[in-house]
Amino acid sequence: MAKDGISVGIIGFGTVGTGAARILLENADLLRQRLGFPVRLKRIADIDTKKDRGITLPKGMLRADANEVLNDPEIDIVAELIGGTRPARDFIVGAIRNKKHVVTANKALLAIEGNAIFKEALRNGVQVGFEASVAGGIPIIKVIREGLIANRILSIYGIINGTSNYILTKMTDEGLEFDRALKEAQRLGYAEADPTFDIEGIDSAHKLTILASLAYGIPLSFDKVYKEGITRITPQDIEFAGELGYKIKLLAIAKCADKKVELRVHPTMLPKDYLISKVDGVFNAIYVEGDAVGDTLYYGRGAGDMPTGSAVVSDICDIAKNMMSNAKGTPVFFTKTALRVKDITEIESMYYFRFSALDKPGVLSKISGILGKNNISIASVIQKGRRVGEAVPLVILTHGAKEKDILKAIAGIDRLPVLAAPTRYIRVEGPETG
Amino acid sequence: MAKDGISVGIIGFGTVGTGAARILLENADLLRQRLGFPVRLKRIADIDTKKDRGITLPKGMLRADANEVLNDPEIDIVAELIGGTRPARDFIVGAIRNKKHVVTANKALLAIEGNAIFKEALRNGVQVGFEASVAGGIPIIKVIREGLIANRILSIYGIINGTSNYILTKMTDEGLEFDRALKEAQRLGYAEADPTFDIEGIDSAHKLTILASLAYGIPLSFDKVYKEGITRITPQDIEFAGELGYKIKLLAIAKCADKKVELRVHPTMLPKDYLISKVDGVFNAIYVEGDAVGDTLYYGRGAGDMPTGSAVVSDICDIAKNMMSNAKGTPVFFTKTALRVKDITEIESMYYFRFSALDKPGVLSKISGILGKNNISIASVIQKGRRVGEAVPLVILTHGAKEKDILKAIAGIDRLPVLAAPTRYIRVEGPETG
Repeated sequence: MAKDGISVGIIGFGTVGTGAARILLENADLLRQRLGFPVRLKRIADIDTKKDRGITLPKGMLRADANEVLNDPEIDIVAELIGGTRPARDFIVGAIRNKKHVVTANKALLAIEGNAIFKEALRNGVQVGFEASVAGGIPIIKVIREGLIANRILSIYGIINGTSNYILTKMTDEGLEFDRALKEAQRLGYAEADPTFDIEGIDSAHKLTILASLAYGIPLSFDKVYKEGITRITPQDIEFAGELGYKIKLLAIAKCADKKVELRVHPTMLPKDYLISKVDGVFNAIYVEGDAVGDTLYYGRGAGDMPTGSAVVSDICDIAKNMMSNAKGTPVFFTKTALRVKDITEIESMYYFRFSALDKPGVLSKISGILGKNNISIASVIQKGRRVGEAVPLVILTHGAKEKDILKAIAGIDRLPVLAAPTRYIRVEGPETG
Repeated sequence: MAKDGISVGIIGFGTVGTGAARILLENADLLRQRLGFPVRLKRIADIDTKKDRGITLPKGMLRADANEVLNDPEIDIVAELIGGTRPARDFIVGAIRNKKHVVTANKALLAIEGNAIFKEALRNGVQVGFEASVAGGIPIIKVIREGLIANRILSIYGIINGTSNYILTKMTDEGLEFDRALKEAQRLGYAEADPTFDIEGIDSAHKLTILASLAYGIPLSFDKVYKEGITRITPQDIEFAGELGYKIKLLAIAKCADKKVELRVHPTMLPKDYLISKVDGVFNAIYVEGDAVGDTLYYGRGAGDMPTGSAVVSDICDIAKNMMSNAKGTPVFFTKTALRVKDITEIESMYYFRFSALDKPGVLSKISGILGKNNISIASVIQKGRRVGEAVPLVILTHGAKEKDILKAIAGIDRLPVLAAPTRYIRVEGPETG
């Protein structure tokens, strides 16, 4: 029997659920025109059926029990938009086992339990859409999976956490300390009461896990992503970076060469004149370099009800089109790949060091001696505000060096009696300088 | 009978054809992994079978006769990559009538004859992919048609002609005159011997025609696009723009409000701090504003063998996936829409004027009097280098005004005896100033 349209159920009527519902209701005619058939929002489930979300639903659409979505034989696609891992996982698996296609924005769940979820979906012959799980409204999943399908992906650099980008922008533009910028972000609703996931790089790592899996055909490998947040970045670091021609961004980086993949999230110094360096505030951007296409960049809002809703509805439409024409849809291409994920100690990078050294004769010589002994060569040095006998910042930018040599050098340098505080370092991307 | 893979033929072994062939041959294993089945390049046709393209083809693959592609019953998808309108159109229609799917990079042909071509494709039940026709490797067709399907597209601003962007960048960075910057572009191979299509906005208009058709569901309407090139932009204009906080870019603009669409290509002053203003050289970028997603931007190389080849192969893969699962594929959604395309005289914008007026007492008052009489209010004025009795540039930035009032005012002002040369004006986008 030919279907005359597709029915959708939403579980989770929070920010994203409200955005998705609003689009499905308000742009229903537009979607019907574009698709050639209707996509009907049939039901929404949320434990809170009372709260005013500023949207008028048809009578009876909102229910308290998720089973009224999961077990409704008329519903073809279930959008899981509650977030968190439990009960989200159970709803997703429940929908899959009921042979319903699933759309989710749940990056944390996918990054950690996605391998099992996708396997379950494959077994049940249903699709799982997750465009909304990375970078909100930017269709980066579709871009990597379909738009750039012809390319070996050489590298991905993503600003994919709006909270951190807002904080770093505030610190850069106004010279604020991290704590003050975080408070400001919380006041504006850009950071949660517990901001750990955002500021420690965990949220970015969830998203990088998903992007890397698509780009390299490796299983979702959250545990193998190196994660370092922005809490130790100081206005002084930002200022020195500026003097050297760089901006500091929290980047999610994936690179592939010689059958090895690097997966890392950390504050990164980027040349000021890179387009991605100019992405400020809560905006997200993902730079993707392909062997054929070269440099590309995708920019937009990484969060919010309507941007994320836009991504949810695009997944719903893709699945709906496939259903209407009995197509299987895009497989999530986790191929059995021979690629290995590197440990962070195996990477090579340029580095920025900020040493807090007592300003005594011979300090620079001692430090640079230890760097040299560890195969680290110096590209530039900044030393300012000499006050003999007091600790002053000594900044060194290196040429390309190995992370394991860097760690050894720092251990040696931090043992020097002239060091007043542990050495800080930031990885630097861009062309070699000096 | 289930197919075990998809066979592709290419007509046109020039720059783009070589790029597409190289990707299909060199990344064949990758494509097979990602798709789950092989896409095989079976044949290439080009009248020149001798030229060295720096690529080694399997023996017998390259033929001089396009019919060996068009009439080969094994070939499923034909990529038309010769450009120009004839015989390109005949090859495309020939392929369609032979029930072959078509992929093309031919924006000029689609913009002008696309309505008939898509109708023919619909009649024959085949798909026409044209990702490569706009912005080279940037998957902007897929983004608008699928990634942002949930959105009413409020506006599109595209830097979609690399040649013009290179020339304007050169003029901006080095203060070059247009003619010198054009010569430099020709020397580097960024501009053709006859650069008319690029510098007069025609190529951008071809591409805008295609984007607007997808965004608004209107028939391809190349004739209705306002086209103005960059040949009359001077280093002086660029300098004044800079002083006022703007950069000059050749923009392709599509906007929709109140059931009316604006389609225009012209030099445009854009606030310096916009991300798209920072897109320099031969790069392309398209800003797309959707009602749900908000601001988004897509950046990459708009031309070249491999970037454009990347787009061609992505279309081939999309069609191949649909064929393997017997799906119909994405319709080109030319819905019967009630949207009307505005004439340029109906638009509203801010404007930059450069008057060449003899510096006599009362000139500013006369000019501003005529502006006022035509409902044009002034946001800022720059007047410099007073040399009484000689022509000096007088620059005026307006608030929002109607184009038809602007034209009337200029006609009046240019009749003033103190005017030494025709008045130049440039449309200005961005927030209202002053």
